[in-house]
Amino acid sequence: MNPHPFDTAIALLHEPPDRWRGRTSEDYWNMVSPFGGATAGAMMQAMLDHPERRGTPLSFTLNFLAPIEAGEFAIDTELVRANRSSQHWAIRLSQQDKVLAQAIAICAVRRETWSQVEATRPEVPPADKCEIAPPRKATGFLQRYEFRIVRGKPFAVNDDSLSHVWVADNPPRALDFASLTALCDSFLPRIFLRRPDFVPIGTVSINIYFHAGEEALARQGAAPLLGVAQAQAFSDGHFDHHGHVWSTDGTLLATTQQLVWYKE
Amino acid sequence: MNPHPFDTAIALLHEPPDRWRGRTSEDYWNMVSPFGGATAGAMMQAMLDHPERRGTPLSFTLNFLAPIEAGEFAIDTELVRANRSSQHWAIRLSQQDKVLAQAIAICAVRRETWSQVEATRPEVPPADKCEIAPPRKATGFLQRYEFRIVRGKPFAVNDDSLSHVWVADNPPRALDFASLTALCDSFLPRIFLRRPDFVPIGTVSINIYFHAGEEALARQGAAPLLGVAQAQAFSDGHFDHHGHVWSTDGTLLATTQQLVWYKE
Repeated sequence: MNPHPFDTAIALLHEPPDRWRGRTSEDYWNMVSPFGGATAGAMMQAMLDHPERRGTPLSFTLNFLAPIEAGEFAIDTELVRANRSSQHWAIRLSQQDKVLAQAIAICAVRRETWSQVEATRPEVPPADKCEIAPPRKATGFLQRYEFRIVRGKPFAVNDDSLSHVWVADNPPRALDFASLTALCDSFLPRIFLRRPDFVPIGTVSINIYFHAGEEALARQGAAPLLGVAQAQAFSDGHFDHHGHVWSTDGTLLATTQQLVWYKE
Repeated sequence: MNPHPFDTAIALLHEPPDRWRGRTSEDYWNMVSPFGGATAGAMMQAMLDHPERRGTPLSFTLNFLAPIEAGEFAIDTELVRANRSSQHWAIRLSQQDKVLAQAIAICAVRRETWSQVEATRPEVPPADKCEIAPPRKATGFLQRYEFRIVRGKPFAVNDDSLSHVWVADNPPRALDFASLTALCDSFLPRIFLRRPDFVPIGTVSINIYFHAGEEALARQGAAPLLGVAQAQAFSDGHFDHHGHVWSTDGTLLATTQQLVWYKE
Protein backbone atom coordinates (compact mmCIF):
# COMPACT_ATOMS: atom_id res chain seq x y z
CA MET A 1 0.00 0.00 0.00
CA ASN A 2 1.37 3.39 -0.95
CA PRO A 3 1.74 5.89 1.86
CA HIS A 4 -0.89 8.65 2.09
CA PRO A 5 0.28 11.72 0.11
CA PHE A 6 0.21 13.80 3.31
CA ASP A 7 2.61 11.37 4.96
CA THR A 8 4.90 11.70 1.94
CA ALA A 9 4.64 15.52 2.11
CA ILE A 10 5.71 15.62 5.77
CA ALA A 11 8.21 12.74 5.62
CA LEU A 12 11.45 13.78 7.31
CA LEU A 13 14.92 12.33 7.61
CA HIS A 14 16.41 12.97 11.03
CA GLU A 15 19.98 14.30 11.24
CA PRO A 16 20.53 14.15 15.01
CA PRO A 17 20.33 15.95 17.18
CA ASP A 18 18.13 18.78 15.85
CA ARG A 19 18.01 18.86 12.06
CA TRP A 20 15.42 17.27 9.77
CA ARG A 21 15.43 17.03 6.00
CA GLY A 22 12.30 16.98 3.86
CA ARG A 23 11.14 17.61 0.34
CA THR A 24 8.24 19.63 -1.03
CA SER A 25 5.41 17.58 -2.51
CA GLU A 26 3.67 18.14 -5.83
CA ASP A 27 0.54 16.69 -4.26
CA TYR A 28 0.39 19.65 -1.86
CA TRP A 29 1.68 22.30 -4.25
CA ASN A 30 -0.07 25.67 -4.34
CA MET A 31 0.34 28.23 -7.09
CA VAL A 32 3.92 29.40 -6.47
CA SER A 33 5.00 27.46 -3.38
CA PRO A 34 3.84 24.58 -1.19
CA PHE A 35 0.44 24.78 0.55
CA GLY A 36 1.21 26.51 3.87
CA GLY A 37 -0.60 23.77 5.75
CA ALA A 38 1.83 21.15 4.42
CA THR A 39 4.76 23.33 5.52
CA ALA A 40 3.14 23.81 8.93
CA GLY A 41 2.46 20.08 9.18
CA ALA A 42 6.09 19.19 8.40
CA MET A 43 7.38 21.67 11.02
CA MET A 44 4.90 20.29 13.56
CA GLN A 45 5.96 16.73 12.69
CA ALA A 46 9.66 17.55 13.23
CA MET A 47 8.81 18.67 16.76
CA LEU A 48 6.55 15.65 17.35
CA ASP A 49 9.27 13.25 16.15
CA HIS A 50 11.97 14.78 18.34
CA PRO A 51 13.13 12.19 20.88
CA GLU A 52 13.01 14.83 23.63
CA ARG A 53 9.40 15.85 22.93
CA ARG A 54 7.04 15.31 25.88
CA GLY A 55 3.31 16.05 26.04
CA THR A 56 1.13 17.08 23.12
CA PRO A 57 0.89 20.34 21.16
CA LEU A 58 -0.84 23.17 22.97
CA SER A 59 0.07 26.25 20.93
CA PHE A 60 1.72 26.60 17.52
CA THR A 61 2.45 29.88 15.73
CA LEU A 62 4.09 29.95 12.33
CA ASN A 63 5.21 32.97 10.33
CA PHE A 64 5.90 32.55 6.62
CA LEU A 65 8.95 34.63 5.67
CA ALA A 66 9.36 34.05 1.95
CA PRO A 67 8.23 31.58 -0.73
CA ILE A 68 9.56 28.04 -0.42
CA GLU A 69 10.81 26.59 -3.71
CA ALA A 70 10.19 23.10 -5.00
CA GLY A 71 12.81 20.69 -3.70
CA GLU A 72 14.61 19.90 -0.50
CA PHE A 73 14.30 21.83 2.74
CA ALA A 74 15.79 21.60 6.21
CA ILE A 75 13.95 22.00 9.51
CA ASP A 76 15.84 22.89 12.68
CA THR A 77 14.15 22.24 16.00
CA GLU A 78 15.30 23.85 19.25
CA LEU A 79 13.96 22.85 22.64
CA VAL A 80 14.38 26.28 24.21
CA ARG A 81 13.09 25.42 27.66
CA ALA A 82 11.30 22.60 29.42
CA ASN A 83 9.91 21.83 32.82
CA ARG A 84 8.00 18.84 34.16
CA SER A 85 4.72 19.74 32.47
CA SER A 86 5.56 21.83 29.41
CA GLN A 87 8.10 22.42 26.65
CA HIS A 88 8.86 25.50 24.56
CA TRP A 89 10.15 25.00 21.04
CA ALA A 90 11.49 27.18 18.24
CA ILE A 91 11.37 25.67 14.75
CA ARG A 92 12.80 27.04 11.52
CA LEU A 93 12.52 25.85 7.94
CA SER A 94 15.25 26.82 5.49
CA GLN A 95 16.49 26.22 1.96
CA GLN A 96 20.15 26.90 1.15
CA ASP A 97 20.53 28.31 4.68
CA LYS A 98 17.88 30.98 4.10
CA VAL A 99 15.18 30.86 6.76
CA LEU A 100 11.79 30.80 5.00
CA ALA A 101 9.46 29.97 7.90
CA GLN A 102 9.78 30.31 11.67
CA ALA A 103 7.54 28.92 14.39
CA ILE A 104 7.29 28.91 18.15
CA ALA A 105 5.33 26.17 19.86
CA ILE A 106 4.37 24.77 23.23
CA CYS A 107 3.81 21.13 24.18
CA ALA A 108 2.19 20.26 27.47
CA VAL A 109 1.00 17.33 29.48
CA ARG A 110 -2.80 17.56 29.50
CA ARG A 111 -4.38 16.99 32.90
CA GLU A 112 -7.93 16.81 34.17
CA THR A 113 -9.35 20.08 35.46
CA TRP A 114 -12.65 21.92 35.60
CA SER A 115 -13.49 22.31 31.91
CA GLN A 116 -16.05 24.23 29.92
CA VAL A 117 -16.40 24.90 26.20
CA GLU A 118 -17.82 28.37 25.69
CA ALA A 119 -17.70 28.55 21.90
CA THR A 120 -20.83 27.14 20.29
CA ARG A 121 -20.83 24.89 17.29
CA PRO A 122 -23.26 26.05 14.60
CA GLU A 123 -26.20 23.81 13.78
CA VAL A 124 -25.37 22.23 10.46
CA PRO A 125 -26.52 19.08 8.62
CA PRO A 126 -24.20 16.08 9.05
CA ALA A 127 -21.40 15.87 6.49
CA ASP A 128 -22.94 12.95 4.60
CA LYS A 129 -26.03 15.08 3.92
CA CYS A 130 -23.91 17.86 2.36
CA GLU A 131 -22.71 17.94 -1.22
CA ILE A 132 -18.99 17.72 -1.97
CA ALA A 133 -17.82 20.99 -3.57
CA PRO A 134 -16.19 20.66 -6.98
CA PRO A 135 -12.43 21.38 -6.81
CA ARG A 136 -11.87 25.16 -6.98
CA LYS A 137 -8.94 24.86 -9.35
CA ALA A 138 -6.40 22.39 -10.53
CA THR A 139 -3.53 23.17 -8.16
CA GLY A 140 -2.42 20.16 -6.19
CA PHE A 141 -3.37 20.77 -2.60
CA LEU A 142 -7.03 21.63 -3.19
CA GLN A 143 -7.49 18.15 -4.57
CA ARG A 144 -6.11 16.76 -1.31
CA TYR A 145 -9.12 18.04 0.65
CA GLU A 146 -12.78 17.33 0.30
CA PHE A 147 -14.88 20.39 1.13
CA ARG A 148 -18.62 20.40 1.83
CA ILE A 149 -19.74 24.01 2.02
CA VAL A 150 -22.69 24.63 4.32
CA ARG A 151 -22.41 28.43 4.55
CA GLY A 152 -20.30 30.98 2.63
CA LYS A 153 -20.31 30.93 -1.17
CA PRO A 154 -16.75 31.21 -2.54
CA PHE A 155 -15.82 33.96 -5.01
CA ALA A 156 -19.01 35.87 -4.38
CA VAL A 157 -20.11 39.02 -2.57
CA ASN A 158 -21.44 37.65 0.70
CA ASP A 159 -22.76 39.96 3.45
CA ASP A 160 -20.04 38.65 5.73
CA SER A 161 -17.14 36.21 5.48
CA LEU A 162 -18.51 33.65 7.96
CA SER A 163 -18.24 30.12 6.60
CA HIS A 164 -19.22 26.66 7.81
CA VAL A 165 -17.44 23.92 5.90
CA TRP A 166 -16.99 20.20 6.43
CA VAL A 167 -13.46 19.28 5.45
CA ALA A 168 -11.59 15.99 5.22
CA ASP A 169 -8.32 14.71 3.86
CA ASN A 170 -8.63 13.19 0.40
CA PRO A 171 -8.04 10.27 0.35
CA PRO A 172 -9.25 9.83 3.95
CA ARG A 173 -6.56 9.73 6.63
CA ALA A 174 -6.83 9.27 10.40
CA LEU A 175 -6.45 12.65 12.14
CA ASP A 176 -3.25 13.45 14.01
CA PHE A 177 -1.62 16.68 15.18
CA ALA A 178 0.27 17.19 11.91
CA SER A 179 -2.84 16.82 9.75
CA LEU A 180 -4.93 18.93 12.14
CA THR A 181 -2.28 21.65 11.84
CA ALA A 182 -2.54 21.50 8.05
CA LEU A 183 -6.35 21.45 8.15
CA CYS A 184 -6.21 24.69 10.17
CA ASP A 185 -4.72 26.30 7.05
CA SER A 186 -7.33 24.87 4.67
CA PHE A 187 -9.89 27.66 5.22
CA LEU A 188 -10.75 29.62 2.09
CA PRO A 189 -9.05 33.03 2.26
CA ARG A 190 -11.76 35.33 3.59
CA ILE A 191 -11.36 37.94 0.87
CA PHE A 192 -12.82 35.44 -1.61
CA LEU A 193 -16.05 35.48 0.40
CA ARG A 194 -16.38 39.25 0.13
CA ARG A 195 -15.16 40.04 -3.39
CA PRO A 196 -15.89 38.01 -6.49
CA ASP A 197 -12.59 38.61 -8.32
CA PHE A 198 -9.38 36.79 -7.65
CA VAL A 199 -6.66 38.88 -5.98
CA PRO A 200 -3.19 37.63 -5.11
CA ILE A 201 -3.00 36.61 -1.44
CA GLY A 202 -0.54 34.88 0.87
CA THR A 203 -0.73 33.80 4.51
CA VAL A 204 1.93 35.53 6.60
CA SER A 205 1.09 34.16 10.06
CA ILE A 206 -0.99 31.35 11.50
CA ASN A 207 -1.70 30.68 15.14
CA ILE A 208 -3.30 27.49 16.52
CA TYR A 209 -4.42 26.58 20.04
CA PHE A 210 -5.12 22.88 20.51
CA HIS A 211 -8.01 22.27 22.91
CA ALA A 212 -8.09 18.48 22.81
CA GLY A 213 -5.64 15.65 23.23
CA GLU A 214 -4.72 12.47 21.42
CA GLU A 215 -7.85 10.61 22.51
CA ALA A 216 -10.18 13.11 20.86
CA LEU A 217 -8.11 12.98 17.66
CA ALA A 218 -8.14 9.17 17.66
CA ARG A 219 -11.92 9.19 18.21
CA GLN A 220 -12.31 11.42 15.14
CA GLY A 221 -10.40 9.09 12.83
CA ALA A 222 -10.80 10.07 9.16
CA ALA A 223 -14.28 11.58 9.45
CA PRO A 224 -14.87 15.17 8.19
CA LEU A 225 -14.17 18.06 10.57
CA LEU A 226 -16.36 21.15 10.76
CA GLY A 227 -14.43 24.38 10.14
CA VAL A 228 -15.95 27.73 11.08
CA ALA A 229 -14.14 30.97 10.28
CA GLN A 230 -14.75 34.68 9.90
CA ALA A 231 -12.59 37.71 9.15
CA GLN A 232 -12.35 40.51 11.70
CA ALA A 233 -10.82 43.15 9.44
CA PHE A 234 -9.45 43.75 5.96
CA SER A 235 -7.16 46.78 6.18
CA ASP A 236 -4.14 48.30 4.50
CA GLY A 237 -3.09 45.16 2.65
CA HIS A 238 -3.76 42.47 5.26
CA PHE A 239 -6.79 40.66 6.61
CA ASP A 240 -7.20 38.20 9.46
CA HIS A 241 -9.58 35.45 10.32
CA HIS A 242 -10.60 33.67 13.50
CA GLY A 243 -11.62 30.05 13.21
CA HIS A 244 -12.85 26.99 15.09
CA VAL A 245 -12.29 23.35 14.18
CA TRP A 246 -14.91 20.93 15.54
CA SER A 247 -14.87 17.15 15.57
CA THR A 248 -17.85 15.19 14.26
CA ASP A 249 -18.98 14.51 17.83
CA GLY A 250 -18.94 18.23 18.71
CA THR A 251 -15.57 18.51 20.47
CA LEU A 252 -13.72 21.79 19.93
CA LEU A 253 -10.36 20.49 18.67
CA ALA A 254 -8.67 23.79 17.88
CA THR A 255 -9.09 27.53 17.60
CA THR A 256 -7.00 29.25 14.96
CA GLN A 257 -6.20 32.69 13.63
CA GLN A 258 -4.33 33.80 10.62
CA LEU A 259 -3.13 36.98 8.97
CA VAL A 260 -3.08 37.12 5.20
CA TRP A 261 -1.47 39.58 2.81
CA TYR A 262 -3.57 40.70 -0.16
CA LYS A 263 -2.66 42.82 -3.12
CA GLU A 264 -5.32 45.48 -3.47
CA MET B 1 8.90 65.97 34.88
CA ASN B 2 9.36 62.32 35.79
CA PRO B 3 8.98 59.81 32.96
CA HIS B 4 5.76 57.81 32.84
CA PRO B 5 6.18 54.55 34.79
CA PHE B 6 5.51 52.55 31.61
CA ASP B 7 8.40 54.32 29.88
CA THR B 8 10.60 53.40 32.82
CA ALA B 9 9.39 49.78 32.70
CA ILE B 10 10.31 49.43 29.00
CA ALA B 11 13.46 51.60 29.07
CA LEU B 12 16.29 49.78 27.30
CA LEU B 13 20.00 50.33 26.91
CA HIS B 14 21.19 49.34 23.47
CA GLU B 15 24.32 47.18 23.17
CA PRO B 16 24.78 47.19 19.39
CA PRO B 17 24.07 45.50 17.23
CA ASP B 18 21.26 43.32 18.62
CA ARG B 19 21.25 43.25 22.40
CA TRP B 20 19.21 45.43 24.75
CA ARG B 21 19.37 45.65 28.54
CA GLY B 22 16.42 46.47 30.74
CA ARG B 23 15.25 46.13 34.30
CA THR B 24 11.95 44.90 35.74
CA SER B 25 9.77 47.57 37.29
CA GLU B 26 8.03 47.47 40.66
CA ASP B 27 5.31 49.65 39.16
CA TYR B 28 4.38 46.81 36.79
CA TRP B 29 5.00 43.92 39.17
CA ASN B 30 2.49 41.11 39.31
CA MET B 31 2.32 38.52 42.05
CA VAL B 32 5.48 36.51 41.36
CA SER B 33 6.92 38.13 38.22
CA PRO B 34 6.45 41.21 36.06
CA PHE B 35 3.07 41.85 34.41
CA GLY B 36 3.29 40.00 31.07
CA GLY B 37 2.17 43.11 29.22
CA ALA B 38 5.22 45.03 30.47
CA THR B 39 7.48 42.19 29.29
CA ALA B 40 5.71 42.14 25.93
CA GLY B 41 5.96 45.94 25.70
CA ALA B 42 9.71 45.88 26.37
CA MET B 43 10.28 43.17 23.74
CA MET B 44 8.15 45.12 21.25
CA GLN B 45 10.09 48.30 22.09
CA ALA B 46 13.44 46.61 21.45
CA MET B 47 12.26 45.74 17.94
CA LEU B 48 10.82 49.24 17.40
CA ASP B 49 14.06 50.87 18.54
CA HIS B 50 16.24 48.74 16.28
CA PRO B 51 17.94 50.97 13.70
CA GLU B 52 17.09 48.44 10.98
CA ARG B 53 13.38 48.35 11.76
CA ARG B 54 11.12 49.48 8.87
CA GLY B 55 7.34 49.69 8.82
CA THR B 56 5.04 49.21 11.80
CA PRO B 57 4.04 46.11 13.76
CA LEU B 58 1.61 43.81 12.01
CA SER B 59 1.79 40.60 14.03
CA PHE B 60 3.39 39.82 17.39
CA THR B 61 3.33 36.46 19.16
CA LEU B 62 4.99 35.97 22.54
CA ASN B 63 5.39 32.75 24.51
CA PHE B 64 6.25 32.97 28.19
CA LEU B 65 8.71 30.20 29.09
CA ALA B 66 9.35 30.67 32.79
CA PRO B 67 8.96 33.32 35.49
CA ILE B 68 11.12 36.43 35.15
CA GLU B 69 12.79 37.51 38.37
CA ALA B 70 13.08 41.04 39.68
CA GLY B 71 16.17 42.74 38.30
CA GLU B 72 18.04 43.06 35.04
CA PHE B 73 17.19 41.27 31.83
CA ALA B 74 18.58 41.13 28.31
CA ILE B 75 16.60 41.20 25.07
CA ASP B 76 18.12 39.88 21.85
CA THR B 77 16.56 40.95 18.57
CA GLU B 78 17.17 39.13 15.31
CA LEU B 79 16.03 40.42 11.95
CA VAL B 80 15.54 37.00 10.38
CA ARG B 81 14.43 38.19 6.96
CA ALA B 82 13.35 41.39 5.23
CA ASN B 83 12.11 42.49 1.87
CA ARG B 84 10.94 45.89 0.60
CA SER B 85 7.60 45.79 2.36
CA SER B 86 7.97 43.54 5.41
CA GLN B 87 10.36 42.32 8.09
CA HIS B 88 10.40 39.13 10.15
CA TRP B 89 11.87 39.28 13.65
CA ALA B 90 12.70 36.82 16.42
CA ILE B 91 13.04 38.31 19.91
CA ARG B 92 14.18 36.62 23.11
CA LEU B 93 14.30 37.81 26.69
CA SER B 94 16.77 36.21 29.07
CA GLN B 95 18.21 36.45 32.56
CA GLN B 96 21.61 34.87 33.28
CA ASP B 97 21.53 33.44 29.75
CA LYS B 98 18.32 31.50 30.41
CA VAL B 99 15.66 32.31 27.81
CA LEU B 100 12.44 33.19 29.66
CA ALA B 101 10.31 34.59 26.82
CA GLN B 102 10.42 34.20 23.04
CA ALA B 103 8.54 36.13 20.38
CA ILE B 104 8.19 36.19 16.62
CA ALA B 105 6.93 39.34 14.96
CA ILE B 106 6.25 40.95 11.60
CA CYS B 107 6.61 44.61 10.68
CA ALA B 108 5.15 45.88 7.41
CA VAL B 109 4.68 49.05 5.45
CA ARG B 110 0.96 49.76 5.53
CA ARG B 111 -0.55 50.71 2.18
CA GLU B 112 -3.97 51.76 0.98
CA THR B 113 -6.19 48.95 -0.26
CA TRP B 114 -9.84 48.00 -0.29
CA SER B 115 -10.65 47.80 3.40
CA GLN B 116 -13.54 46.59 5.48
CA VAL B 117 -13.97 45.99 9.19
CA GLU B 118 -16.19 43.00 9.76
CA ALA B 119 -16.02 42.79 13.54
CA THR B 120 -18.65 44.92 15.22
CA ARG B 121 -18.01 47.09 18.23
CA PRO B 122 -20.58 46.56 20.98
CA GLU B 123 -22.84 49.47 21.88
CA VAL B 124 -21.54 50.78 25.17
CA PRO B 125 -21.82 54.10 27.02
CA PRO B 126 -18.84 56.44 26.53
CA ALA B 127 -16.02 55.94 29.01
CA ASP B 128 -16.73 59.15 30.94
CA LYS B 129 -20.23 57.85 31.71
CA CYS B 130 -18.83 54.61 33.21
CA GLU B 131 -17.59 54.23 36.75
CA ILE B 132 -13.93 53.50 37.40
CA ALA B 133 -13.55 50.06 38.99
CA PRO B 134 -11.81 49.97 42.37
CA PRO B 135 -8.35 48.34 42.09
CA ARG B 136 -8.73 44.56 42.25
CA LYS B 137 -5.77 44.09 44.55
CA ALA B 138 -2.67 45.85 45.68
CA THR B 139 -0.13 44.40 43.23
CA GLY B 140 1.64 47.05 41.20
CA PHE B 141 0.46 46.69 37.63
CA LEU B 142 -3.28 46.74 38.34
CA GLN B 143 -2.81 50.24 39.72
CA ARG B 144 -1.22 51.27 36.42
CA TYR B 145 -4.51 50.75 34.55
CA GLU B 146 -7.88 52.35 34.98
CA PHE B 147 -10.70 49.91 34.23
CA ARG B 148 -14.33 50.83 33.62
CA ILE B 149 -16.32 47.61 33.47
CA VAL B 150 -19.39 47.74 31.23
CA ARG B 151 -20.07 43.99 31.02
CA GLY B 152 -18.62 41.00 32.89
CA LYS B 153 -18.49 41.04 36.68
CA PRO B 154 -15.08 39.88 37.96
CA PHE B 155 -14.79 36.97 40.41
CA ALA B 156 -18.38 35.95 39.86
CA VAL B 157 -20.28 33.16 38.11
CA ASN B 158 -21.33 34.84 34.85
CA ASP B 159 -23.24 32.92 32.16
CA ASP B 160 -20.34 33.53 29.81
CA SER B 161 -16.93 35.16 29.97
CA LEU B 162 -17.68 37.99 27.52
CA SER B 163 -16.50 41.33 28.87
CA HIS B 164 -16.63 44.93 27.65
CA VAL B 165 -14.17 47.14 29.52
CA TRP B 166 -12.83 50.65 28.98
CA VAL B 167 -9.15 50.64 29.85
CA ALA B 168 -6.51 53.37 30.02
CA ASP B 169 -2.98 53.80 31.30
CA ASN B 170 -2.82 55.33 34.76
CA PRO B 171 -1.53 58.03 34.77
CA PRO B 172 -2.69 58.76 31.21
CA ARG B 173 -0.12 58.18 28.46
CA ALA B 174 -0.37 58.69 24.69
CA LEU B 175 -0.90 55.35 22.96
CA ASP B 176 1.94 53.77 20.99
CA PHE B 177 2.68 50.24 19.80
CA ALA B 178 4.48 49.28 23.01
CA SER B 179 1.61 50.40 25.26
CA LEU B 180 -1.01 48.88 22.93
CA THR B 181 0.91 45.59 23.16
CA ALA B 182 0.81 45.79 26.96
CA LEU B 183 -2.88 46.77 26.96
CA CYS B 184 -3.62 43.61 24.95
CA ASP B 185 -2.48 41.68 28.02
CA SER B 186 -4.59 43.69 30.49
CA PHE B 187 -7.76 41.63 30.01
CA LEU B 188 -9.02 39.94 33.17
CA PRO B 189 -8.21 36.21 32.97
CA ARG B 190 -11.44 34.68 31.70
CA ILE B 191 -11.64 32.03 34.43
CA PHE B 192 -12.37 34.81 36.95
CA LEU B 193 -15.55 35.58 35.01
CA ARG B 194 -16.82 32.03 35.32
CA ARG B 195 -15.73 30.95 38.79
CA PRO B 196 -15.86 33.08 41.92
CA ASP B 197 -12.78 31.69 43.65
CA PHE B 198 -9.21 32.63 42.90
CA VAL B 199 -7.16 29.95 41.16
CA PRO B 200 -3.49 30.28 40.19
CA ILE B 201 -3.16 31.22 36.50
CA GLY B 202 -0.41 32.31 34.12
CA THR B 203 -0.43 33.40 30.49
CA VAL B 204 1.66 31.07 28.34
CA SER B 205 1.11 32.62 24.89
CA ILE B 206 -0.26 35.88 23.52
CA ASN B 207 -0.87 36.71 19.87
CA ILE B 208 -1.66 40.20 18.54
CA TYR B 209 -2.62 41.36 15.03
CA PHE B 210 -2.39 45.14 14.58
CA HIS B 211 -5.09 46.44 12.26
CA ALA B 212 -4.23 50.16 12.34
CA GLY B 213 -1.14 52.27 11.86
CA GLU B 214 0.57 55.13 13.65
CA GLU B 215 -2.02 57.73 12.63
CA ALA B 216 -4.86 55.87 14.34
CA LEU B 217 -2.73 55.46 17.49
CA ALA B 218 -1.80 59.16 17.48
CA ARG B 219 -5.49 60.08 17.05
CA GLN B 220 -6.33 58.00 20.12
CA GLY B 221 -3.84 59.78 22.38
CA ALA B 222 -4.38 58.91 26.03
CA ALA B 223 -8.15 58.30 25.85
CA PRO B 224 -9.56 54.99 27.14
CA LEU B 225 -9.68 52.01 24.75
CA LEU B 226 -12.57 49.57 24.62
CA GLY B 227 -11.48 45.97 25.20
CA VAL B 228 -13.82 43.10 24.31
CA ALA B 229 -12.85 39.51 25.07
CA GLN B 230 -14.35 36.05 25.47
CA ALA B 231 -12.99 32.59 26.16
CA GLN B 232 -13.55 29.83 23.63
CA ALA B 233 -12.65 26.89 25.86
CA PHE B 234 -11.38 25.94 29.30
CA SER B 235 -9.93 22.44 29.02
CA ASP B 236 -7.34 20.21 30.64
CA GLY B 237 -5.48 23.00 32.45
CA HIS B 238 -5.53 25.77 29.85
CA PHE B 239 -8.05 28.29 28.57
CA ASP B 240 -7.90 30.77 25.72
CA HIS B 241 -9.56 34.04 24.92
CA HIS B 242 -10.19 36.00 21.76
CA GLY B 243 -10.26 39.79 22.07
CA HIS B 244 -10.74 43.05 20.21
CA VAL B 245 -9.27 46.44 21.11
CA TRP B 246 -11.24 49.43 19.80
CA SER B 247 -10.26 53.10 19.76
CA THR B 248 -12.61 55.74 21.16
CA ASP B 249 -13.65 56.69 17.61
CA GLY B 250 -14.54 53.08 16.74
CA THR B 251 -11.41 51.97 14.89
CA LEU B 252 -10.40 48.32 15.39
CA LEU B 253 -6.81 48.73 16.55
CA ALA B 254 -5.96 45.13 17.32
CA THR B 255 -7.31 41.61 17.60
CA THR B 256 -5.64 39.42 20.19
CA GLN B 257 -5.69 35.88 21.52
CA GLN B 258 -4.07 34.31 24.48
CA LEU B 259 -3.65 30.94 26.09
CA VAL B 260 -3.55 30.77 29.88
CA TRP B 261 -2.54 27.99 32.22
CA TYR B 262 -4.77 27.41 35.25
CA LYS B 263 -4.33 25.13 38.20
CA GLU B 264 -7.56 23.22 38.67
